[in-house]
Amino acid sequence: MRNIALVIGYDGTAYSGFQTQPGGNTIQDKLEEAIRQLTGETVKLYGSGRTDAGVHARAQVANFHTDSAIPADRWPFALNTRLPADIRVYGAWEAEPDFHARKSAKRKSYRYLIERSRHPDLFHSRTRLHHPRPLDIQAMKQALGYVQGEHDFTSFCSIHSVSQSHVRTIYEARLDHERLDLPGDDQAELITIELTGNGFLYNMVRIIVGTVIEVGQGKRAPEEIRRILLARDRAQAGPTAPAHGLILWQVQY
Amino acid sequence: MRNIALVIGYDGTAYSGFQTQPGGNTIQDKLEEAIRQLTGETVKLYGSGRTDAGVHARAQVANFHTDSAIPADRWPFALNTRLPADIRVYGAWEAEPDFHARKSAKRKSYRYLIERSRHPDLFHSRTRLHHPRPLDIQAMKQALGYVQGEHDFTSFCSIHSVSQSHVRTIYEARLDHERLDLPGDDQAELITIELTGNGFLYNMVRIIVGTVIEVGQGKRAPEEIRRILLARDRAQAGPTAPAHGLILWQVQY
Repeated sequence: MRNIALVIGYDGTAYSGFQTQPGGNTIQDKLEEAIRQLTGETVKLYGSGRTDAGVHARAQVANFHTDSAIPADRWPFALNTRLPADIRVYGAWEAEPDFHARKSAKRKSYRYLIERSRHPDLFHSRTRLHHPRPLDIQAMKQALGYVQGEHDFTSFCSIHSVSQSHVRTIYEARLDHERLDLPGDDQAELITIELTGNGFLYNMVRIIVGTVIEVGQGKRAPEEIRRILLARDRAQAGPTAPAHGLILWQVQY
Repeated sequence: MRNIALVIGYDGTAYSGFQTQPGGNTIQDKLEEAIRQLTGETVKLYGSGRTDAGVHARAQVANFHTDSAIPADRWPFALNTRLPADIRVYGAWEAEPDFHARKSAKRKSYRYLIERSRHPDLFHSRTRLHHPRPLDIQAMKQALGYVQGEHDFTSFCSIHSVSQSHVRTIYEARLDHERLDLPGDDQAELITIELTGNGFLYNMVRIIVGTVIEVGQGKRAPEEIRRILLARDRAQAGPTAPAHGLILWQVQY
């Protein structure tokens, strides 16, 4: 059997997350259905990881095994005609037999978008957290510095996590900001937080972002991140930032 | 009575255009209804111009007369809570008694967005024309050069135009292009055509863009634009580009 890997983007607004679950309406369900329509095969798709309900992806990766002879570069076109417009297959390649989108992943990057503006830019309201008040960018950058490296991220993951180890390495935690051209709003800016790591725990990016936003609001000092990490207690960290600002940006193998 | 001017953005996808018409479902209807809910008054809103069904606006301007005492800077917040999420009021000011959003307008700018990519970026598919094949950027720029200046634009307006004169001045017709960061697509780029003029006829921007795209496709030489202008015959120009790539960018007074 061939092992086909897909690069998939989706607007997660309308879905219950990537991975199949009771109740359906997941990205995985839609992709498996499109593959079934195309090939007649019932396949199981292995994603690089789950994304929660409402979370988006620019380049999720998933693989599946098939007897179909369709050349790798034709899969995107063939599947896109069978997918809803908010799910797109951007690329495909023929992977090695032992390739597994989750187990083979070396690095993953997530981005979280925060729009600092008086009134949210209506063309991007599905993919940005709107924050009307000023944020202390320098303090947020400093806070993100403490997240980098290998840590036990128990404080920054959901209490519902079932991972055996909560130790992960964040290779890079950066914040970029740029002016936004919104009518009559000189102060508008887009803040992008990008985290790259060897893996992420359940809700980890959103809890880090939620805590860093509290730093930006002046509710916490940047140095608190160190203490929170050492506490290994979810209650010490800030709230889980809303799903719609988060996008799975890239998976590297 | 006070004369209040609003700066309004909208995603036109779901609407039958800006201006009230039989059958309803227009941006103007939604705004007048929000004003009625807020003030109890039935007002008539004067837009800077119509936009067709499916056309968007970053900063449409419209004014209305009211006895309400609400301060100008509170109107955006008060109206936004009563508007659907795809219509936003970004700003408001108290205008002179004789200000009229259409009659007082000095310059208007429209942008048209073309995405040159293999698979459309799903996060922007509502506001960009997708064009999978290469386009000759230099030829398109040259063609736009011929549009600048004062011309009779009969060839570039709908045969249903009811304007008495088809003479308009285009102060600037420019094309910018930038690389787009789409997964696995090194060639992806965003092409932005911006037209600024003293006024625009019915479908004028979309017919200019439709013709310039044919130049980019190599179907027409750039110099043809001159001949088409002189012909004063709609049949000589190219097709009307789709509504969803067009956005009313700015109105200057």
